[in-house]
Amino acid sequence: MALDPSVSSVELTRAICDFHSVSGDEAALADAIEEVVRRCAHLEVIRHGNTIVARTDLGREQRVVIAGHIDTVPINDNLPTRDMEIDGEAYLWGRGTVDMKAGVAVQLKLAVELTEPTADITWMWYDNEEVEATKNGLGLLAAVRPDLFQADFAILGEPSNGEVEGGCNGTLRVVVRTHGVRAHSARSWIGENAIHGAAPVLARLAEYRAREVPVEGLVYREGLNAVKISGGVAGNVIPDLCEVEVNYRFAPSKDVAEAEAHVRSVFAGFEVEVTDASDGARPGLDAPIARDFLAAVDGEARPKYGWTDVARFSALGVPAVNYGPGDPHLAHHDEERVPVAQIDAVERGLRAWLTAS
Amino acid sequence: MALDPSVSSVELTRAICDFHSVSGDEAALADAIEEVVRRCAHLEVIRHGNTIVARTDLGREQRVVIAGHIDTVPINDNLPTRDMEIDGEAYLWGRGTVDMKAGVAVQLKLAVELTEPTADITWMWYDNEEVEATKNGLGLLAAVRPDLFQADFAILGEPSNGEVEGGCNGTLRVVVRTHGVRAHSARSWIGENAIHGAAPVLARLAEYRAREVPVEGLVYREGLNAVKISGGVAGNVIPDLCEVEVNYRFAPSKDVAEAEAHVRSVFAGFEVEVTDASDGARPGLDAPIARDFLAAVDGEARPKYGWTDVARFSALGVPAVNYGPGDPHLAHHDEERVPVAQIDAVERGLRAWLTAS
Repeated sequence: MALDPSVSSVELTRAICDFHSVSGDEAALADAIEEVVRRCAHLEVIRHGNTIVARTDLGREQRVVIAGHIDTVPINDNLPTRDMEIDGEAYLWGRGTVDMKAGVAVQLKLAVELTEPTADITWMWYDNEEVEATKNGLGLLAAVRPDLFQADFAILGEPSNGEVEGGCNGTLRVVVRTHGVRAHSARSWIGENAIHGAAPVLARLAEYRAREVPVEGLVYREGLNAVKISGGVAGNVIPDLCEVEVNYRFAPSKDVAEAEAHVRSVFAGFEVEVTDASDGARPGLDAPIARDFLAAVDGEARPKYGWTDVARFSALGVPAVNYGPGDPHLAHHDEERVPVAQIDAVERGLRAWLTAS
Repeated sequence: MALDPSVSSVELTRAICDFHSVSGDEAALADAIEEVVRRCAHLEVIRHGNTIVARTDLGREQRVVIAGHIDTVPINDNLPTRDMEIDGEAYLWGRGTVDMKAGVAVQLKLAVELTEPTADITWMWYDNEEVEATKNGLGLLAAVRPDLFQADFAILGEPSNGEVEGGCNGTLRVVVRTHGVRAHSARSWIGENAIHGAAPVLARLAEYRAREVPVEGLVYREGLNAVKISGGVAGNVIPDLCEVEVNYRFAPSKDVAEAEAHVRSVFAGFEVEVTDASDGARPGLDAPIARDFLAAVDGEARPKYGWTDVARFSALGVPAVNYGPGDPHLAHHDEERVPVAQIDAVERGLRAWLTAS
């Protein structure tokens, strides 16, 4: 199956969405993308697994990376795509329309058409974003070809309602454990109930008021939430262990160590084990190139709450923002759908910036 | 493998324990017991599955059922049995020594030797006591041969430290549920966290003070405990459901309906579903035969906290008590062990009562 980049971004979105590419199954779509960019004389193409890189080398003063993942979460009866109108607005409905094939379509179309951009561009389309981080195509590429990530600015096409979302919150996961002593539940006074012992843990979570933290002019909203709880041995046994898994989403002004210290202070007196942590990313909107970008797309930056791969660029010292069509609340949703006007708007915005004289 | 009922109760306990008979695997032990009682001219033998009934029919004024289960919970490196001495006291150590093969051994020995008891006796040794109630050999027999349960008194050889434990608490299990709204944990304010919503459920459990309830002169200690908690969808999702399984052990002066009403009042405002309920058993020590028994074994009755099959007799209108060697706290324990002196004492107690002129 081939992709035709001469059609509109909306039609290209439809074609790319109808290419099934659930994480781990991106080869065919990667092949089709590679075939499109290999035909472009102005692009150098590098393939690494199912990640395709296409770059100009025009000797421009600045270089920007523009990236998007080509995998989706599993399909749930929401393909092929359909046209839909809600309250007079036209949508393209179906898996991947929001997260993030509309963004990929816009990028692919511009990669072909922008033969003389004002900054050199490194386009990246990568696999396995929706699964464990160790499989992430961007991460795997950075490990072997860090040189490809040298840039002045990066744009990730993650859905942001066509607005510019700077940076992202960090995320920390901990397990808070309470211990007790097993006993038969008919003689419960001999034991010590670890689930009852978790009452203050849940109370502190329920009472917790998440902060809003200004960082470089954007306000990041945090969150501290139980995402799992488990405990219990059998229906007639006083449980000796209760585990509450807590996810802390923290503003990018904190690093993981500070986030951990905060969570430990919230659960002072309890056993806390860190199981997973990722730094956030500062919005990086101080750089002149970022300000030019904002002006060109006529946008106002907002904070990004969810962790995205912008943090990978941020960790490499490259300021990065999210800019793509689609409402992130509809990502992974069975009613995933993108307003077609946003696809066009993002195409216009990127084109304006990359062709500004 | 054959059992020799002419050895001491302690040696017979050892032989029966070394017969593996985890629930569902009692056939060989049932065969051996049947073989012993079939040789006794004074006993009529009925077999139902792996439940063996042996009864005298001497035309006595009163009949007593004496019963014990022959299955054990799984072996955990605690067989074969071993002799052990702790603080100068001799023990027989190993799976089943407490729950309840010492009791079965005493019963089997007396079944053979008491050819002229002062009351007619219906001995019952049954399978599948340690697993779901639908498999319980005593329950299955009662369903098809209720006539065998007609008696003036019943003694269950469950471990009671060689003391008489009357009746038993009832047990009720409920699931208390909290509901919420799913959302991505990066935007938790859009959802509603069901685990946080369970904070008051755990707080009420932690604050609950269980009652002590006098019933017919015995004081029953109750208990209200979480035995399981679960909730959570994924590490990045605000959970929409949390379930707390609660076990209420209630004094036999309450019936299941009253117990349910109490639990519903404790969790007022929350969704409560009853999943399992069994009435307790009143101690039944008012009957003259029960008082004679107490006097003969030189015992003082205590309340039984755990639910046992005495409740089945109680439900059939037969007063029933627990009387057996072994500390119930060591039942199911990997260090399960019975003081040999208690085996002898229970044998003496039953023999004295059943041969008193």
